[in-house]
Amino acid sequence: MSNRLSVAVVGAGYWGPNLARNFRASADWDLAAICDLDAERAQRVADGVGGVPVTTSLDEVLANPLIDAIAIATPARTHHPIVMAALAAGKHVIVEKPLADDRVRGAEMVSEARARGLVLMADHTYCYTPAVLKIRELIADGFLGDILFVDSVRINLGLIQPDVDVFWDLAPHDLSIIDFILPGGLGGATVAAQGADPLRTGKACIGYLSMPLPGGAIAHIHVNWLSPTKIRQMVIGGTKRTLVWDDLNPQQRVSVYDRGIDIATQSEATTLDRRAANISYRLGDTWAPALEEHEALAGVAKEFAAAIREGREARTSGESGLRVLSVLEAAAGSLKADGAPYPIDVNVVS
Amino acid sequence: MSNRLSVAVVGAGYWGPNLARNFRASADWDLAAICDLDAERAQRVADGVGGVPVTTSLDEVLANPLIDAIAIATPARTHHPIVMAALAAGKHVIVEKPLADDRVRGAEMVSEARARGLVLMADHTYCYTPAVLKIRELIADGFLGDILFVDSVRINLGLIQPDVDVFWDLAPHDLSIIDFILPGGLGGATVAAQGADPLRTGKACIGYLSMPLPGGAIAHIHVNWLSPTKIRQMVIGGTKRTLVWDDLNPQQRVSVYDRGIDIATQSEATTLDRRAANISYRLGDTWAPALEEHEALAGVAKEFAAAIREGREARTSGESGLRVLSVLEAAAGSLKADGAPYPIDVNVVS
Amino acid sequence: MSNRLSVAVVGAGYWGPNLARNFRASADWDLAAICDLDAERAQRVADGVGGVPVTTSLDEVLANPLIDAIAIATPARTHHPIVMAALAAGKHVIVEKPLADDRVRGAEMVSEARARGLVLMADHTYCYTPAVLKIRELIADGFLGDILFVDSVRINLGLIQPDVDVFWDLAPHDLSIIDFILPGGLGGATVAAQGADPLRTGKACIGYLSMPLPGGAIAHIHVNWLSPTKIRQMVIGGTKRTLVWDDLNPQQRVSVYDRGIDIATQSEATTLDRRAANISYRLGDTWAPALEEHEALAGVAKEFAAAIREGREARTSGESGLRVLSVLEAAAGSLKADGAPYPIDVNVVS
Amino acid sequence: MSNRLSVAVVGAGYWGPNLARNFRASADWDLAAICDLDAERAQRVADGVGGVPVTTSLDEVLANPLIDAIAIATPARTHHPIVMAALAAGKHVIVEKPLADDRVRGAEMVSEARARGLVLMADHTYCYTPAVLKIRELIADGFLGDILFVDSVRINLGLIQPDVDVFWDLAPHDLSIIDFILPGGLGGATVAAQGADPLRTGKACIGYLSMPLPGGAIAHIHVNWLSPTKIRQMVIGGTKRTLVWDDLNPQQRVSVYDRGIDIATQSEATTLDRRAANISYRLGDTWAPALEEHEALAGVAKEFAAAIREGREARTSGESGLRVLSVLEAAAGSLKADGAPYPIDVNVVS
Repeated sequence: MSNRLSVAVVGAGYWGPNLARNFRASADWDLAAICDLDAERAQRVADGVGGVPVTTSLDEVLANPLIDAIAIATPARTHHPIVMAALAAGKHVIVEKPLADDRVRGAEMVSEARARGLVLMADHTYCYTPAVLKIRELIADGFLGDILFVDSVRINLGLIQPDVDVFWDLAPHDLSIIDFILPGGLGGATVAAQGADPLRTGKACIGYLSMPLPGGAIAHIHVNWLSPTKIRQMVIGGTKRTLVWDDLNPQQRVSVYDRGIDIATQSEATTLDRRAANISYRLGDTWAPALEEHEALAGVAKEFAAAIREGREARTSGESGLRVLSVLEAAAGSLKADGAPYPIDVNVVS
Repeated sequence: MSNRLSVAVVGAGYWGPNLARNFRASADWDLAAICDLDAERAQRVADGVGGVPVTTSLDEVLANPLIDAIAIATPARTHHPIVMAALAAGKHVIVEKPLADDRVRGAEMVSEARARGLVLMADHTYCYTPAVLKIRELIADGFLGDILFVDSVRINLGLIQPDVDVFWDLAPHDLSIIDFILPGGLGGATVAAQGADPLRTGKACIGYLSMPLPGGAIAHIHVNWLSPTKIRQMVIGGTKRTLVWDDLNPQQRVSVYDRGIDIATQSEATTLDRRAANISYRLGDTWAPALEEHEALAGVAKEFAAAIREGREARTSGESGLRVLSVLEAAAGSLKADGAPYPIDVNVVS
Repeated sequence: MSNRLSVAVVGAGYWGPNLARNFRASADWDLAAICDLDAERAQRVADGVGGVPVTTSLDEVLANPLIDAIAIATPARTHHPIVMAALAAGKHVIVEKPLADDRVRGAEMVSEARARGLVLMADHTYCYTPAVLKIRELIADGFLGDILFVDSVRINLGLIQPDVDVFWDLAPHDLSIIDFILPGGLGGATVAAQGADPLRTGKACIGYLSMPLPGGAIAHIHVNWLSPTKIRQMVIGGTKRTLVWDDLNPQQRVSVYDRGIDIATQSEATTLDRRAANISYRLGDTWAPALEEHEALAGVAKEFAAAIREGREARTSGESGLRVLSVLEAAAGSLKADGAPYPIDVNVVS
Repeated sequence: MSNRLSVAVVGAGYWGPNLARNFRASADWDLAAICDLDAERAQRVADGVGGVPVTTSLDEVLANPLIDAIAIATPARTHHPIVMAALAAGKHVIVEKPLADDRVRGAEMVSEARARGLVLMADHTYCYTPAVLKIRELIADGFLGDILFVDSVRINLGLIQPDVDVFWDLAPHDLSIIDFILPGGLGGATVAAQGADPLRTGKACIGYLSMPLPGGAIAHIHVNWLSPTKIRQMVIGGTKRTLVWDDLNPQQRVSVYDRGIDIATQSEATTLDRRAANISYRLGDTWAPALEEHEALAGVAKEFAAAIREGREARTSGESGLRVLSVLEAAAGSLKADGAPYPIDVNVVS
């Protein structure tokens, strides 16, 4: 028990209970408290995990020297003040996506954590699913070759959020995954966003986001709250193989197609016409790796503890959260400019 | 026999044999000749339909007073001269997509046909499939309500074309269908296109096209030559119901979901906040209409004959072909402008 | 609180925690105790639902006058003694499937409950899923017409049970559902069973069960522990429409096809040859009813309470459990007779 | 041209045109004549392949010394007289399934061909599809290990045949495939068949067929004319891997699952209890081999020519046709005996 870390969960709404349950079940953590302004809500979460102290006072939590870390699952606009206070109190922090509601505030949080030598981790839960971990590994091992395109679709009949549009609600998932699996992360320089609000809700309910990637590749994301059919699919095309991740097909989530287009190398084909002549097709086998079944949040809890103990950045660091934020902000800029490409601010930390 | 119309097929490449076979099988038509510069190729097509005269001379075909119409399945850049010559010779014309390789030339063809009182029909074959005919009917009957969005995906491992990019190769299908099914046709004012050529073939192999539609709606098209999985799916969201057309699911090509988001009317909710409060979900039944099985090209042949006999525009008229061309040209303009929205030239006929 | 019924859960293994959780959450019930010979296991279940008394003594539970009912989730061979003791103590009983490990003992339990005027309910959980409730309703309303066949497949890579074969492990699900949805219940007179044990485990791991139904119809069940693909599908063919229940397709679990074969009525077609001439096809629409999402066990808890309060049989009564048992026993008889049809003992209660 | 073989197609109904087209397109064959009692029907088939002589006289065909072989696509009851006459005339024969309408007559045909040293080939077309050829190869290479079970489903809304029941109409496909892919062919000793005729058509429209295989394995076939959903799926379980062939999924027809149940060998576990303790699960990858796209009948034509030239039995020989016939006849016997297992007559040739 003595070498466990101690964590308090702040925010007992939609996501808080999941954090509480996973920290409770983790061998790395003691769940020290549930904190929410609504005491009754906090109590319900505490009861659900078998009895944990509750409090409505964040100050009390931060003042407790036995607590090593806090996990924040409050609305995005409250992330900055809570994180800054927690860091000031010497706590490690994991924060729900998006990192903040504003890039500048996000950058401040990242700087502050770095200055204090504390871990600031983004809770990019999807990155800890067996499917995404496998995809990252396959790309890192060169199994797909160079990446040519990433096409992500995340559509469903969704709750129209009161405060954010469909980009800020859903695209952080896709962006954090792309940042996690690509060797260069979210390395684009510009983003173009098209949105539509045909129901006149005051915010985009349908969104498309295009981001040229280095080397002529492209990433594209389609998010939609108005689709009656649920699709969560990502296609990742590479020079060697192409991978399809269909998250709603538990029997074959990840398929790797040894199919594609081969093209003669530069030296053999010097003109475009000769290039065209050198294109050929490859129709090879399909392969679906076996994936373990485990809950992603358990991996999140484990990684958070490991980063703290090893004094290193988490695999989904505050900076990765900031990169996601930068793209979202640039997308908002593009939306205002009627879809013209908008530069992504890359000054991650001022 | 006497009240049949007579048609010659010009072009014996990929599509010509299909036209020949369907005109041959039609009760409305006599197939008078197959014309191709390559006599051997023409002969193979003629043999395949049970013996029809062949010729390598277009002039000969056009000079034949017994021939009422010609069907053109030659490369896009040859459409203009052949169509203009055919119209000058007093022939009705059906022409393979795209109408022409250039909007101005396409507009000239449309003007010429109109001036001469001849039928100029675009062979938008998909529009005559049972699925698309049913979709058009459902929308016209108000079954979906007002259209909120159209999202079309047409991806596959495709032949990289020597002369055109993926937009000009595949998007004419989606655009001609959208033009056919929406009450207002292709009524957008601008289009934004993102493309990628990660294999350095000299042209876009992956393409995304966004087109705001009147009333806050949006149409989006994804075309891709590099996808190992084949998808041909169109989602059409309406205020009442949403329709999904999955062309690769023969057991249930068209599904209509009585699901969606209901929102109180303008009069009841005057502010955005109150609007948000008035959003509710509808989770109703799914319905998949039975579709007849018939070949689309048989419907094309029939409509071509009917338009000629009734002295009217074909349902997929030259002007619809021109609207498709206008969007494609605007998309090319957007591509050159790095994806910024580009105006669609609506001066259909000068 | 005063008008709630009180229940103890006996058996804290695989299924007990689910019963405990649902009784705990029910407005009809107070969860009075968890009883298991293994005190530690009982405690874990009690903790999981937020603190309930535990005991290792069944006698103590049965002697408690405040407890109205017991819910039994122990191994099948222990059902008879526990149920008989509970009934003798004046408790209402719900028991996990199969009702007993032997038809005679099952019949004794049913008789005893009837004699004492107590509710004996079979926990046929599947019957309380939204899908099965809807199927029962559609058949009862005559929407499918007369039932022609029921074909059920339930295959997966399954745990080879130490004590029972694949028929006794999986087929109770299919049999209890068929008993629930067909107007005549499990009304067959004979059953033929084919089994295979290719891995030499000492019991059938693959099983097929055929049961002629009144009126020339047939029910067939395929259960299999050795299939790498998971299928849970039931096709119910009727004279008017055919229904497909695909339990692994959450987006469209139940589909009703207005497709089938029409045949002229007896009076119009008196000979077989003329019958054949009078067969025609109907290719109508497909319809998928919207299904509520709710946990089946919540419905089980509610029905158990309602049956007790209204002094009536539960919808999945002890007799339905006995009919399932009768078919399983006849299937075992057929297996021993190399698959020859075996009579189903219909003397439900001696 | 001189080293081509010459074939006449007898029977211009449903299947004849396919045979004609494939022999016409084959480099091994000259299509010498189309023979049908209905001259007009024969002419239509001849026209469809570009002009081939037609005749209504089988005698004329058989008397023609230039014709090496005949391909028979007439109703099953006519196979015996036509084949016997053709063999008597010294012609090699390929005959549509089923080989004959009666096992004794089929055996006579096989004996006769053998006595005369002529090729008698069964047109088991499915065996020449890329999928089945690959399955046969994988099993022969030991990739699946020992076969544990074969489960085949072939259901659809089907034409109720005037002369045969659903077993004789559809099961020959499944049986011929099983005979082709299993090392021991159709090696069962008995078969049990359950049928239903709920529409009172005078013959079974729904059929189930179970056949124990050597070594404790089992084959099971489900054929059904009354299903609104079309399924053509075969699962082949092996000790090493399990294969699923879904013929209606062109994107992944054949999947091989490295999943299953491992069991300790006999020597390590001497009692059943210890056996149970030695069972473990394997959850490995899925692999879908790339399959060429080619028409199966082209392979049939090629194999027929090769068997003639090499003086050997065809891969789907008359004897394989006879084995299929033997199972069908035994199934009919079981049907009459209410589903009791019925011996398969293995005296293939008297």
